[in-house]
Amino acid sequence: MKAPVWKWFIEFTHPTQAHMHGVEEVIYSGKTKYQTVEILDTEFFGRCLILDGKIQSSAYDEYIYHETLIHPAMILHPEPKQIMIVGGGEGAVLREILRHPSVEQIIMVDIDREVVELCQEYLPQWSQGAFNDSKVQVLHMDARKYLEETDQVFDIIIMDLTEPVDDGPSYLLFTKEFFQTTIDRLAEDGVLALQSGNFNPRLIECHAAIYNTLQISYPIVRSYSAFIPSFDTQWAFTLAAKNLDPLQLTPEEVDKRLQARKLNDLLYYDGETHINMFSVPKDIRRAIAQETRIIADNRPLITY
Amino acid sequence: MKAPVWKWFIEFTHPTQAHMHGVEEVIYSGKTKYQTVEILDTEFFGRCLILDGKIQSSAYDEYIYHETLIHPAMILHPEPKQIMIVGGGEGAVLREILRHPSVEQIIMVDIDREVVELCQEYLPQWSQGAFNDSKVQVLHMDARKYLEETDQVFDIIIMDLTEPVDDGPSYLLFTKEFFQTTIDRLAEDGVLALQSGNFNPRLIECHAAIYNTLQISYPIVRSYSAFIPSFDTQWAFTLAAKNLDPLQLTPEEVDKRLQARKLNDLLYYDGETHINMFSVPKDIRRAIAQETRIIADNRPLITY
Amino acid sequence: MKAPVWKWFIEFTHPTQAHMHGVEEVIYSGKTKYQTVEILDTEFFGRCLILDGKIQSSAYDEYIYHETLIHPAMILHPEPKQIMIVGGGEGAVLREILRHPSVEQIIMVDIDREVVELCQEYLPQWSQGAFNDSKVQVLHMDARKYLEETDQVFDIIIMDLTEPVDDGPSYLLFTKEFFQTTIDRLAEDGVLALQSGNFNPRLIECHAAIYNTLQISYPIVRSYSAFIPSFDTQWAFTLAAKNLDPLQLTPEEVDKRLQARKLNDLLYYDGETHINMFSVPKDIRRAIAQETRIIADNRPLITY
Amino acid sequence: MKAPVWKWFIEFTHPTQAHMHGVEEVIYSGKTKYQTVEILDTEFFGRCLILDGKIQSSAYDEYIYHETLIHPAMILHPEPKQIMIVGGGEGAVLREILRHPSVEQIIMVDIDREVVELCQEYLPQWSQGAFNDSKVQVLHMDARKYLEETDQVFDIIIMDLTEPVDDGPSYLLFTKEFFQTTIDRLAEDGVLALQSGNFNPRLIECHAAIYNTLQISYPIVRSYSAFIPSFDTQWAFTLAAKNLDPLQLTPEEVDKRLQARKLNDLLYYDGETHINMFSVPKDIRRAIAQETRIIADNRPLITY
Repeated sequence: MKAPVWKWFIEFTHPTQAHMHGVEEVIYSGKTKYQTVEILDTEFFGRCLILDGKIQSSAYDEYIYHETLIHPAMILHPEPKQIMIVGGGEGAVLREILRHPSVEQIIMVDIDREVVELCQEYLPQWSQGAFNDSKVQVLHMDARKYLEETDQVFDIIIMDLTEPVDDGPSYLLFTKEFFQTTIDRLAEDGVLALQSGNFNPRLIECHAAIYNTLQISYPIVRSYSAFIPSFDTQWAFTLAAKNLDPLQLTPEEVDKRLQARKLNDLLYYDGETHINMFSVPKDIRRAIAQETRIIADNRPLITY
Repeated sequence: MKAPVWKWFIEFTHPTQAHMHGVEEVIYSGKTKYQTVEILDTEFFGRCLILDGKIQSSAYDEYIYHETLIHPAMILHPEPKQIMIVGGGEGAVLREILRHPSVEQIIMVDIDREVVELCQEYLPQWSQGAFNDSKVQVLHMDARKYLEETDQVFDIIIMDLTEPVDDGPSYLLFTKEFFQTTIDRLAEDGVLALQSGNFNPRLIECHAAIYNTLQISYPIVRSYSAFIPSFDTQWAFTLAAKNLDPLQLTPEEVDKRLQARKLNDLLYYDGETHINMFSVPKDIRRAIAQETRIIADNRPLITY
Repeated sequence: MKAPVWKWFIEFTHPTQAHMHGVEEVIYSGKTKYQTVEILDTEFFGRCLILDGKIQSSAYDEYIYHETLIHPAMILHPEPKQIMIVGGGEGAVLREILRHPSVEQIIMVDIDREVVELCQEYLPQWSQGAFNDSKVQVLHMDARKYLEETDQVFDIIIMDLTEPVDDGPSYLLFTKEFFQTTIDRLAEDGVLALQSGNFNPRLIECHAAIYNTLQISYPIVRSYSAFIPSFDTQWAFTLAAKNLDPLQLTPEEVDKRLQARKLNDLLYYDGETHINMFSVPKDIRRAIAQETRIIADNRPLITY
Repeated sequence: MKAPVWKWFIEFTHPTQAHMHGVEEVIYSGKTKYQTVEILDTEFFGRCLILDGKIQSSAYDEYIYHETLIHPAMILHPEPKQIMIVGGGEGAVLREILRHPSVEQIIMVDIDREVVELCQEYLPQWSQGAFNDSKVQVLHMDARKYLEETDQVFDIIIMDLTEPVDDGPSYLLFTKEFFQTTIDRLAEDGVLALQSGNFNPRLIECHAAIYNTLQISYPIVRSYSAFIPSFDTQWAFTLAAKNLDPLQLTPEEVDKRLQARKLNDLLYYDGETHINMFSVPKDIRRAIAQETRIIADNRPLITY
């Protein structure tokens, strides 16, 4: 008898807490200039992308993550045309944005060219050709520098970044200074959406600090969340806007807008899902309300 | 240097998926007539109860599980007086029910006397003295037999059972025959609430089958869920009723009823949490809708 | 289907090296004044004793460990009568010593009374009644203090101690000062034998340092070893003596002495095993020869 | 803080026994026509080759394995010239054989060309150029077919194969029929040496059966062993010969022969190591003596 699996990806979220994923095949394993990359085929979740030891998305459930990150912001905006993506290397963010018929231009800035190329080669299901769409322009540079120097104005900015670990490529993109730069580049109806940490109440500090920091620049800041099976946890997202508020959208209005954009075939997002996402359990609301930290360039957020 | 932890509780949910919990101290480990029992102190979640290798609740987050199981049904009913609990050995179900001032009598039937005694000894935080309340009567017998033979009528029946594994004590309490017995013992405004499996879309079959089976007997059946950190997953619950519908409760009405019962100090449940719980993501809704299995005494549900 | 095992004892020997033992039942788990104690039933090795997270012996292979620790010294001595044991809480050291007919008195000094009592209760296979033998006297005190203050002279001293971790009970019993105390209490033909660390060439420093330190006091010092399956490694022992040399014993002489003492029914030790034990592979010999560290009271040996 | 390691190679030797190796980098992971291949950099043992989930050798300790497999047979033979290797893909067997000055020709037959090429690319420390030596001829075909059809006669045959798992490439190379073929192709002073399973007494059946089967064809059969740290166990080898007996070699004679061949710079093997290797502990001797199974083509040996 052969043992069924001998390669394991073990993601420690704490010194005494870990999740074990049995690996069928290692598709790719290497280091880019910015981070380590593994692309693994697991029996349970199919192909997975791992950056710096943390699972980013899996074939089985990336639809949950990406629909949650993209559609609330896009549906909230009446007619999103100019879109900016910070990060988003897998290409699934592009894919979901391109489903909205009003989109005219997407500028994606992901510093790590190698990750983007690896994703196109090994994760084609994620981008489904989106990188070749003529509306899409991909830049490999520091997104912060790009936003500081451009004078373009966006309807939507999406931040799809890895966790802000201390020597990772993302930690200066979760600060009050960067958040101010994003609002400066948003149009009047502009919306920012970002993944923003664990929604587990025991690990909520990261999300709470991001939420709190966004409130300095944005009049409207809303936590929302989805359970991502391959993350083994409820995951946090944040939507921030100048004047549009996702809590004002009824499920019927969400469904109506999706219908109008011919998006009623989404797998995860619709009116009822919108209500689920944006209603926050009491314990989490309390923890967020008590948070006082402000993340700044000189005091970045470092997660485990 | 000593290694910080050498005892691990590893919960496999699938042959290639497992969660590792570092254990600080084994408080109790043994076997009752019906199941194995471990009571473990973990650094991350504090004290945990493990039955047949599956975590049942942890000191850190049992409030989420128990408030979710109890309060939606209790708040939905205008004046719950007669309550029946099937299982519920830890005593936290009792504790939460007793918070509702209208309660006059609680009959708890848990077949495993030893587990109930162990919980009173080692998990006093769970029951907080509830076993000594004069409204409470605890019976150690087969809950099915009890319900079949009693002629008492209940306002609320709570099922707080372990997973229906094949030689475990619970598998005949998740069948259409048993569910019919429960509705026969409910008053006109009666409500049944139960924990009902994993809400992970990859593992939804168990919940979907329970939901589908309940629909044979009950006019109103509603899935709801909560993320339980120590389970590493979104967990499913079901509320079934003769005529009351939790989807008719606005968050304002939930908060008003909680206020009237002086329950505004709950940690997890309130009006917004109610909305979150009962709104079901689209993928799960579809999976439940497609389920056709009926669980019966001669065709029980067996989970991994 | 139930998962077959969910409790694991994971012994880390290094931050990136660990051995996993599936546990069937936790027999005992607690803390004494000096160390943590677990007594576990494993499917593979049967009952195991774990002190401070390190496996001490298993039902399956304790015969290898204990025969290796005891019989080379006892057989080397022509007529061992007065025996001292430092540690040895399980009682299997007593059991093996008592097999030699010349033995008149055994003084066992183990500081941890609770461990000794737990072993009698839960590991009766180890001691097989030896604690009740009229030749045996057990003291619960600091063995160093005992040896410093007694004027008794011993033929054999056996050291069966846990690893010298920094806040464990043993680290002052592996120093040049203590080794000098042992030789002072040995008769002319006296022999000291001790377990002395891992024999894995990658982890040989501990053994090499003990060997080197013993050479200060003892004219004859010999490394020997045995593969202990439950330790997953070749384990080191050291024999030190005033004038007797185990390398002078031919296998025929060992077998003859065993025969004379009616010990030809041992499971592990005989003439050929003696040759195997005391012949040291070249890489280990070289590593030991290069060691220069001396362990002293003010510079104790601390292992991982 | 980043977790130090998140990739683990976990080698299960039994459903409740496993060893965890933290992996720093996956150098290669793929499948050949015959087996899965992983080449991993571990912190503890350096680069490792894994075939079908079992560690074959590590940079840190491959010298132990390969010196043990090669030199006893080569030294036992007074002047080995014609050498046959069955398997041996890493090239370290070649490297060690080429150190003996009398060698004129080495024919290595390893069915898996891809493994041989991967080893040359990723494990150059193993072969150290040996594949380019003009005395070496490498064939990629079924070694059994080769030996059955050739009329060449060899002084030494080395079998360096993976475990005989049921659908692996090796299971028909551990049968009485194949062993008879090897002795038919050996010269009068010919010697066969092979790795032959675990030497752990709890897992000795595989070795004992190989030993027992060899005795059908060979007048002289000797078990020997070495502790291989990266295998976490004592590993078995067998030497079989027509008339030469390694037990007749004194350590002095071994050292003299090594000296004559200018092999006194070996890391592991010398006269004392020879004695250590070929002396077998009593429990293992008894288990081997009691073995009655004969491995045959129609009744192959299948290990876990």
